[in-house]
Amino acid sequence: MQVLLFITGEDVKLFYHVKELQYHAKPERPDPIFAKQLQEILGGQFGEISVALQYLFQGWAVRGNGKYKDLLMDTGAEELAHIEMLATMIARLLDGAPVGDLETAAKDPVIGAILGGMNPQHAIVSGLGAMPADSVGNKWTADYIIASGNLLADFRANLNSESQGRLQAVRLYESTNDRGVKDMLSWLIARDTMHQNQWIAAIKELEAKENVVVPSTFPNHLEKREVSYTLFNYSAGNESATGRWANGPSMDGEGQFNFVENPVPYGNKPKLKPAPPYIHDTLPAVIKGQSGKIPPSMY
Amino acid sequence: MQVLLFITGEDVKLFYHVKELQYHAKPERPDPIFAKQLQEILGGQFGEISVALQYLFQGWAVRGNGKYKDLLMDTGAEELAHIEMLATMIARLLDGAPVGDLETAAKDPVIGAILGGMNPQHAIVSGLGAMPADSVGNKWTADYIIASGNLLADFRANLNSESQGRLQAVRLYESTNDRGVKDMLSWLIARDTMHQNQWIAAIKELEAKENVVVPSTFPNHLEKREVSYTLFNYSAGNESATGRWANGPSMDGEGQFNFVENPVPYGNKPKLKPAPPYIHDTLPAVIKGQSGKIPPSMY
Amino acid sequence: MQVLLFITGEDVKLFYHVKELQYHAKPERPDPIFAKQLQEILGGQFGEISVALQYLFQGWAVRGNGKYKDLLMDTGAEELAHIEMLATMIARLLDGAPVGDLETAAKDPVIGAILGGMNPQHAIVSGLGAMPADSVGNKWTADYIIASGNLLADFRANLNSESQGRLQAVRLYESTNDRGVKDMLSWLIARDTMHQNQWIAAIKELEAKENVVVPSTFPNHLEKREVSYTLFNYSAGNESATGRWANGPSMDGEGQFNFVENPVPYGNKPKLKPAPPYIHDTLPAVIKGQSGKIPPSMY
Amino acid sequence: MQVLLFITGEDVKLFYHVKELQYHAKPERPDPIFAKQLQEILGGQFGEISVALQYLFQGWAVRGNGKYKDLLMDTGAEELAHIEMLATMIARLLDGAPVGDLETAAKDPVIGAILGGMNPQHAIVSGLGAMPADSVGNKWTADYIIASGNLLADFRANLNSESQGRLQAVRLYESTNDRGVKDMLSWLIARDTMHQNQWIAAIKELEAKENVVVPSTFPNHLEKREVSYTLFNYSAGNESATGRWANGPSMDGEGQFNFVENPVPYGNKPKLKPAPPYIHDTLPAVIKGQSGKIPPSMY
Amino acid sequence: MQVLLFITGEDVKLFYHVKELQYHAKPERPDPIFAKQLQEILGGQFGEISVALQYLFQGWAVRGNGKYKDLLMDTGAEELAHIEMLATMIARLLDGAPVGDLETAAKDPVIGAILGGMNPQHAIVSGLGAMPADSVGNKWTADYIIASGNLLADFRANLNSESQGRLQAVRLYESTNDRGVKDMLSWLIARDTMHQNQWIAAIKELEAKENVVVPSTFPNHLEKREVSYTLFNYSAGNESATGRWANGPSMDGEGQFNFVENPVPYGNKPKLKPAPPYIHDTLPAVIKGQSGKIPPSMY
Amino acid sequence: MQVLLFITGEDVKLFYHVKELQYHAKPERPDPIFAKQLQEILGGQFGEISVALQYLFQGWAVRGNGKYKDLLMDTGAEELAHIEMLATMIARLLDGAPVGDLETAAKDPVIGAILGGMNPQHAIVSGLGAMPADSVGNKWTADYIIASGNLLADFRANLNSESQGRLQAVRLYESTNDRGVKDMLSWLIARDTMHQNQWIAAIKELEAKENVVVPSTFPNHLEKREVSYTLFNYSAGNESATGRWANGPSMDGEGQFNFVENPVPYGNKPKLKPAPPYIHDTLPAVIKGQSGKIPPSMY
Repeated sequence: MQVLLFITGEDVKLFYHVKELQYHAKPERPDPIFAKQLQEILGGQFGEISVALQYLFQGWAVRGNGKYKDLLMDTGAEELAHIEMLATMIARLLDGAPVGDLETAAKDPVIGAILGGMNPQHAIVSGLGAMPADSVGNKWTADYIIASGNLLADFRANLNSESQGRLQAVRLYESTNDRGVKDMLSWLIARDTMHQNQWIAAIKELEAKENVVVPSTFPNHLEKREVSYTLFNYSAGNESATGRWANGPSMDGEGQFNFVENPVPYGNKPKLKPAPPYIHDTLPAVIKGQSGKIPPSMY
Repeated sequence: MQVLLFITGEDVKLFYHVKELQYHAKPERPDPIFAKQLQEILGGQFGEISVALQYLFQGWAVRGNGKYKDLLMDTGAEELAHIEMLATMIARLLDGAPVGDLETAAKDPVIGAILGGMNPQHAIVSGLGAMPADSVGNKWTADYIIASGNLLADFRANLNSESQGRLQAVRLYESTNDRGVKDMLSWLIARDTMHQNQWIAAIKELEAKENVVVPSTFPNHLEKREVSYTLFNYSAGNESATGRWANGPSMDGEGQFNFVENPVPYGNKPKLKPAPPYIHDTLPAVIKGQSGKIPPSMY
Repeated sequence: MQVLLFITGEDVKLFYHVKELQYHAKPERPDPIFAKQLQEILGGQFGEISVALQYLFQGWAVRGNGKYKDLLMDTGAEELAHIEMLATMIARLLDGAPVGDLETAAKDPVIGAILGGMNPQHAIVSGLGAMPADSVGNKWTADYIIASGNLLADFRANLNSESQGRLQAVRLYESTNDRGVKDMLSWLIARDTMHQNQWIAAIKELEAKENVVVPSTFPNHLEKREVSYTLFNYSAGNESATGRWANGPSMDGEGQFNFVENPVPYGNKPKLKPAPPYIHDTLPAVIKGQSGKIPPSMY
Repeated sequence: MQVLLFITGEDVKLFYHVKELQYHAKPERPDPIFAKQLQEILGGQFGEISVALQYLFQGWAVRGNGKYKDLLMDTGAEELAHIEMLATMIARLLDGAPVGDLETAAKDPVIGAILGGMNPQHAIVSGLGAMPADSVGNKWTADYIIASGNLLADFRANLNSESQGRLQAVRLYESTNDRGVKDMLSWLIARDTMHQNQWIAAIKELEAKENVVVPSTFPNHLEKREVSYTLFNYSAGNESATGRWANGPSMDGEGQFNFVENPVPYGNKPKLKPAPPYIHDTLPAVIKGQSGKIPPSMY
Repeated sequence: MQVLLFITGEDVKLFYHVKELQYHAKPERPDPIFAKQLQEILGGQFGEISVALQYLFQGWAVRGNGKYKDLLMDTGAEELAHIEMLATMIARLLDGAPVGDLETAAKDPVIGAILGGMNPQHAIVSGLGAMPADSVGNKWTADYIIASGNLLADFRANLNSESQGRLQAVRLYESTNDRGVKDMLSWLIARDTMHQNQWIAAIKELEAKENVVVPSTFPNHLEKREVSYTLFNYSAGNESATGRWANGPSMDGEGQFNFVENPVPYGNKPKLKPAPPYIHDTLPAVIKGQSGKIPPSMY
Repeated sequence: MQVLLFITGEDVKLFYHVKELQYHAKPERPDPIFAKQLQEILGGQFGEISVALQYLFQGWAVRGNGKYKDLLMDTGAEELAHIEMLATMIARLLDGAPVGDLETAAKDPVIGAILGGMNPQHAIVSGLGAMPADSVGNKWTADYIIASGNLLADFRANLNSESQGRLQAVRLYESTNDRGVKDMLSWLIARDTMHQNQWIAAIKELEAKENVVVPSTFPNHLEKREVSYTLFNYSAGNESATGRWANGPSMDGEGQFNFVENPVPYGNKPKLKPAPPYIHDTLPAVIKGQSGKIPPSMY
């Protein structure tokens, strides 16, 4: 890598891809079963596709620029590089993956285990490439991502994503004996450590500016304040009454937690009006238990 | 409501439903357009179905009992009651909703606005009932919910859900002039205030016990510590270098944040091995730019 | 249509398509808003794609041939023809559909209503063709269909499909003033009348052979017979105690309905065992409310 | 369970959860493969989430109260308790589930079978908890549920759900040797027996009031009566002509079934008009087989 | 097959089903693992359901009739017959499929491999029938299909479908030792050969009429011609500069390819305006790094 | 942009983001209705998310490096920049978007049109930001993308994507009067012109190396050659017989096209064997029309 890529700012590209990986992604040996499992942190609910697109969409939506937007773009771009590392690792875990049917499986227990345990789409669909899917084969969906325009809300989403993501990476670390895979996971786990720390720092900063309830810009008096700090007991047993959330000042410092052991309903038994005839719901008479026969003249 | 429902513990039911609502759900007047919008907090990503099932699934998965499980069940059961309030409100907003085509729409601009702006499935599919769907009609999916077995991770998910949910409820509050709808929303917004406070309290308690990085049970030395507190600059501009997340001790107290302006790749340019012939990927020769013709003898 | 298509049985084709429609599909005038609504019975949960593929998949799965399989194939093939009728009608309702933005909409209230009320994908994606989607634009999914290999179960699914489908067609009939559309709907509604009658007839025949509980082949004594005919009261109020389902002989003739007003739990309070350490769930100590700090030696 | 939970009606809660299970949910021994299979009746198309939410949404939409609504709420609340039983059972079947890669699998055939046959998300994602997903890992979706506002239509949906659900529970009963699992399934199967009986009873009552075709409120003469009782032969072979559905009085008592062996089309060959130029569909000239070159002046 | 089905054109049916298969679909022996894999080309992204419905929807949308429409209907109807062949084959591969749990699996490695490797829904849900799903169990969705009203665009979609489809069929051919399965696949592979040839022929014909860029009807001068034939280098390394796509006349004959090694941005750094207060996004002050505290008077 | 970003190759980052846009994305004025429509080419089936991830996944899966991989990475990275342009444009079209209910809508027809025609999630969910969704609100899904490991197959997918994508961009260009939006679209349309040309060039090169049928590596003699070039007439009318695809040498130069007007089935009428009793499908006796009553002893 001796070439001079950018000489001056005039050469600024946009999204720009460099072929080197952020970190090594080389397993000791192929393992198509583990390739299937590893898909979880590539294309699952908290996989790298989710965090990459979540941070980018949050960043693109920031109204006004500054350090929060820059932080989102920095991290979003890094997660794209993580997708690439995982895609590379998975392709290598699939190197030379066998194909076959029951006859093949019956001949050799190890091949049989692979055929039963690998994702068949890794052979049939992607031709031994990684897929934008999770460890059971569900395709990635934007249902997984969150961007609301409110940074405190979204940084909490991000902290959750990095918490779930690191948890899954750690579980995968525990599931493999391959030192190459463990090495790459130790990198991703460390990055998740940073990202949890980073979002906590950003959250604390915003909470100091805005207080802790999102959105901070809704006037308190417009909400039903009498139940803003109340824990209602809707499950038998009152262990929950002993927690911090039921005692002492509320976390936003604007009220006192309290516990209601036997909550009563504040509303009435609802009764909905009949639907108009053109909707053809069950007739009111029938609901009441009477006959719903339409007079023959109607036919 | 004068009947004695439970005399002794022997009469303990399970999930038990009472017909009264937790709080009033009566609009001043029907409004099918707003009914469509209100679906967001019933059946959207952060609607009441999501929080109800998220808390219940987390609660059912707690290994061991105690106050956290009780808290999850209390709150999960309450969210079921919120679904019912919203379902009731939506049905009432749909009271007597008109149906029609362009001819109907052209005759009266207000009817026309309703026909264009309401969700057609409210008439055709549900017969003026609420649907398990969001404000554009996407059906609710369990892709929205999170339950990992790790309570600190999950309480962060919950804090995010209540933050996004309250934000959406507030936006809906701003969108309506109906005092009945506003009244109900002021209840839900207050409950979200409590639920944000409650999860913050629970998170703080767990963080005090476990420190802030999830999962806390993975030995530090197994991760690549040299990058555990580093912000890499992958987006032009270095505004992000000025944040707390790039300076001072890390939030977990176990390192120092640092900023790398010009990060270098730690990995090589990956080169994947060819696939076996039975996979029928593009041949290595073709990838290299040579002919891929198969000798006639192969046919 | 004077040509002789098939001379002898040797010319038997397979699925074979004839260009004529089963029935007319010509609206009086274009109406892009109604085109959007009509999508419901083409590509919605109970639209024609659903019944066509449901009947065909059930038919292909029949183990052994005979009249039930033939009936399924007859009806499945007819539903394919209904898809074509609806696709034709929708394309004609979209004839010359306008496109435009707010400026266009602001100029003419009727055009404005169309732009707001039509499905934008009818212009942008399908180029004024029908889409395999419902009235809010959700794409058709095989989640909608049912085929279990048990004909009594499946015919009940079919009866439901035709009931929901006719209900939706009737609601659409009520929503339009266009005589061409009403004419086509009156055909589809009549066919749904037949199909409801037909599945009822088939169900009665199977129930006479097998009794009413599916599957009939599971020996009674293996189920917990003491609760096979019991209505448990899990919702306050006991109006449900007055129904036929709580009194008299059960519908399968093998028991007596009964009502339990105050049901008690038969099971214990469950307590799950801790997860193994490699799963990294919250530690048992933490669940119990104790510290979850890992000794430094672990790091 | 000695505590007095409710003293008077004033203490009426809403949805209320009691920690005891409706019935035992304890396997003899862990079995992660069966845990995966059992997910089908928790989070599959006809699993307990589906029936719980289906009955609740139907109940909330009933316009007017009475015994049908009460029945729906009773049953919906019970199904919530069934979700809990299954979630508990699945968590216990996952107790101590192993994790690992090919190396682990190759060492011990039984561990290998578990690793290949279990759902990897049970370890990586849920941390040995049940998931809101089916036996292949598809997440639960509200596409599965039905609530139309027409009770006869919806009770048919319910009868189908309980038929498919009991069929699946029976198949799972046949698939396990574990007496604890069989015991729990024998409870669920019995409840499905009740629920089938119950919906049949309710359907019969409504049919007696409304006749059998849904919706009963659409005047007969508006449908194309000449084809309301006709079976068209669209599949070679006429075995279907011998069924009850092709002979004798129709099930609604308003017509005579008949069979048409060689049905003719009632409609013409459709020909759609060209799209406007701004839609950029293929030009009419090109469709006719002529050149579609645009004159250079257009560029 | 001695019966005379159609005597004259007056007997023309619509979609018509004949019970014979287009080609044999009989395996040498059951193989539930292969049944699962074979689902890919029945209900996967490029399975037979996809091509059948894609061609039919394209055909129904053709505005004007003629040879292209006829070709689409011919091929769409054939693909329905392919669904039937695959459904039949899969049902036979499932003949007598075992069910069981870990205990069953542990007793016999071959049964164990089947239980781990088969799709559990083939037993629990479909009762040994084929499902409208792919090889990992994702249900078929209309997200897979394409119909735009522009035939050149759509025939390119079709060529892609037949290319991906044949590739998958070939990979499955390589995966089985069963001569019956191979025989059926050799038929489907040959038909895909025809269908690729056929769409190439149709594409060449349309390209000759319209030139190669879709849509051909958009005047050139309205696009930003200065970048219509430019390859921008957004990935380090310039191997791509050596391809035909970066040198010589463009394929549409209307320009010259060129390569820009160091592309510069043509746009500015975007800065979005603040959202209105009723949206409750993060406040501009907070974005800028100032306090976001709302004055107490607001509460 | 005066800063020197990269001095030497040692500073090579990975995915790297620059804040300038590839091209301007500024509308003349806000238009929330058009913002909704524009979502189609951001998050729809052929939107920029689809092409970005499709090219990147194809690139990461290339086994061996070289110009094809480089081309994929160049283009994939560019599409990321297009997502950013569209996200920026959509946010600006949403500037100051109104919220409101029927009362608000009734007061001002233009506001009413906006409330009816805009995507409500743009206000409630994203806070006036772009969403990863299409023009009717369906969330983006990886079901849209294709990467098979076979470059000729995949480049055909790419050519289709760019054809559908340019068609949609052109339709949107026709739908707006805003010169700023038209300006940006004219850029995207030009880039799609390039990308169509580019994939055509790459396809021609691969076809020259491999011939036209994918995969080229499957020996001809293993497919059923007698039907490799045959058009079967499965739709009444034989206009399709007149096309190039039914006459003359096949496009792969290895056969002759031919047309079969009255195709016969090559397979038999399939008859499936009964399922084993533990599957509880309908009993063979019942299928045959006999009684399915189980002897009482079985209960």
